[in-house]
Amino acid sequence: MANINQLLGLVAADMRHVEEKMRAGVAARYADLAAVVDYLMGAGGKRLRPVLTLMAASFYPADKTKAYALAASVELLHTATLVHDDLIDNALLRRGMPTLNVSWSAGATILAGDYLFARSAELAAETQNIRIVTIFAQTLMAIVGGELQQLFSDGHGNIPTRQEYEQRIYAKTASLFAAGTQCGAILGGASPKEEQALYDYGYHLGMAFQIVDDILDFQGDEETLGKPVASDLRQGIATLPVMLFVQKFPQHPIIRRAVSRESVSDKDMESVVKEIRASGCLEIAMTEARQLVQRAQTALAVLPDNQYRQAMHGIADYAVSRQL
Amino acid sequence: MANINQLLGLVAADMRHVEEKMRAGVAARYADLAAVVDYLMGAGGKRLRPVLTLMAASFYPADKTKAYALAASVELLHTATLVHDDLIDNALLRRGMPTLNVSWSAGATILAGDYLFARSAELAAETQNIRIVTIFAQTLMAIVGGELQQLFSDGHGNIPTRQEYEQRIYAKTASLFAAGTQCGAILGGASPKEEQALYDYGYHLGMAFQIVDDILDFQGDEETLGKPVASDLRQGIATLPVMLFVQKFPQHPIIRRAVSRESVSDKDMESVVKEIRASGCLEIAMTEARQLVQRAQTALAVLPDNQYRQAMHGIADYAVSRQL
Repeated sequence: MANINQLLGLVAADMRHVEEKMRAGVAARYADLAAVVDYLMGAGGKRLRPVLTLMAASFYPADKTKAYALAASVELLHTATLVHDDLIDNALLRRGMPTLNVSWSAGATILAGDYLFARSAELAAETQNIRIVTIFAQTLMAIVGGELQQLFSDGHGNIPTRQEYEQRIYAKTASLFAAGTQCGAILGGASPKEEQALYDYGYHLGMAFQIVDDILDFQGDEETLGKPVASDLRQGIATLPVMLFVQKFPQHPIIRRAVSRESVSDKDMESVVKEIRASGCLEIAMTEARQLVQRAQTALAVLPDNQYRQAMHGIADYAVSRQL
Repeated sequence: MANINQLLGLVAADMRHVEEKMRAGVAARYADLAAVVDYLMGAGGKRLRPVLTLMAASFYPADKTKAYALAASVELLHTATLVHDDLIDNALLRRGMPTLNVSWSAGATILAGDYLFARSAELAAETQNIRIVTIFAQTLMAIVGGELQQLFSDGHGNIPTRQEYEQRIYAKTASLFAAGTQCGAILGGASPKEEQALYDYGYHLGMAFQIVDDILDFQGDEETLGKPVASDLRQGIATLPVMLFVQKFPQHPIIRRAVSRESVSDKDMESVVKEIRASGCLEIAMTEARQLVQRAQTALAVLPDNQYRQAMHGIADYAVSRQL
């Protein structure tokens, strides 16, 4: 398996243009926000969404300038949702760095997120493609609608059904991965079959990616995670590992208290995290993620077998092999 | 001068389609949010933004379905910004009705606003016109950028310069009025000269409209206003009436305390409101608003003299004659 940095290297030069694009439009108009974008971008991450968007656009003779705008739009949309999410969750850390809401007032943080949404829409429009803009808007509706649904349903002691969980991780993660790769295809004028294939790739990879995130939330420690272990469960949110654990131990008292938003001591939380780790449920969840990755890779079969397809194949492997 | 309801009547049938469009797209996907849209729409108001958008589109053989989508997009964008503003300002009332943030958590209110932004972008894309989508995105950037600027500059004891005030009311109000009338023109394929005229109309009308809002904030009482008198000054924001008052009384202690966000008793606030009312500054501000309305009306001269132009002329008069 190729090293992830080698795979990303294929579009490294393009990504510098994308990052420039992300900063430039904001900096020109609003210095305070430019510093925020710099800060949020400095928080790192592999930027898989814009990378895959660029790769999806690279199968075709797509206009590079438009591809950069599209990729920047995808990453800024992602960033904007994180800014609002961290405020809503009162999260203090993201990737080990203080969140924006730690240093800015709630009002300024809300407006910063709104501004990034707007800039992201402007960048989507730079593709001059109305279907792309529509997908952009619908993806934001899916993401936000999913969060609202979660907000209203969490903490009532319910373990989500499989279907509810899938809707959730689609909204949270797969929708934007899929939108990015589909819009990359559209930008290049892909055939309907190829566009569908790239959508399917993004969708399944995004679903797998979120499941792996949900697994990683139970591994490592606060230092390596950059946030508390089991952060979702602490907020009353049951993800796949917990759902599988509850199938084995339906009446587990700590889980029941956690998903009802009753107080759970740190000691109890540590103890249930240990039980989940020992239960084999993380491994079962990982098997599901691997199956989704295989479906993502299978979808690529209709595309020309070039370096981009190979990189996208490898990045899918990375999604389930990544460590903290 | 024609009655405002007669003027609005010209597009009343169209506005029913617009309201349907505003509700339908949200209701189909998310019942809780549909109730919110109903609620926000029930709060009334003259809906001048979509009305003027429709009228601007009516000079030309514009596609009605697209005009409805555009007008709905403009009003939903406006609604979304109000949802976030009321949360940021912790406002409890809007047009005499409790704000969304009174009954919903901050998180749900943020997400509701985000969802309306997204839906509004989707509606803008229904026009199938990429210039319209771009103007839509840039208008949201202007609105939010203006608010951020205000957030960072208020409460430092500064009275805004004339230029700062104009930038503020452009961002807050004129930008969206102008975007609506300009996009209406674009939708119908107006000539560049006519498009500019309709932009100018919306811009000057919007500037006048906000000045009148700032005047009305010092008139009437809490019951007729549906919010406290001098609500801006209470938040440390100096608008045109206060700027004019400070020119006459540069060292007025209560104003200085208010714009420095130092505590001002209700009695002191009432007393300064009375002084401002008696100072003649509201009348000077109204004269400025009337001049802007005349510029808006003059801009209409290049357009065919039909019922839409006459209605837009009359609505501009209404903007400076409206009472609480």
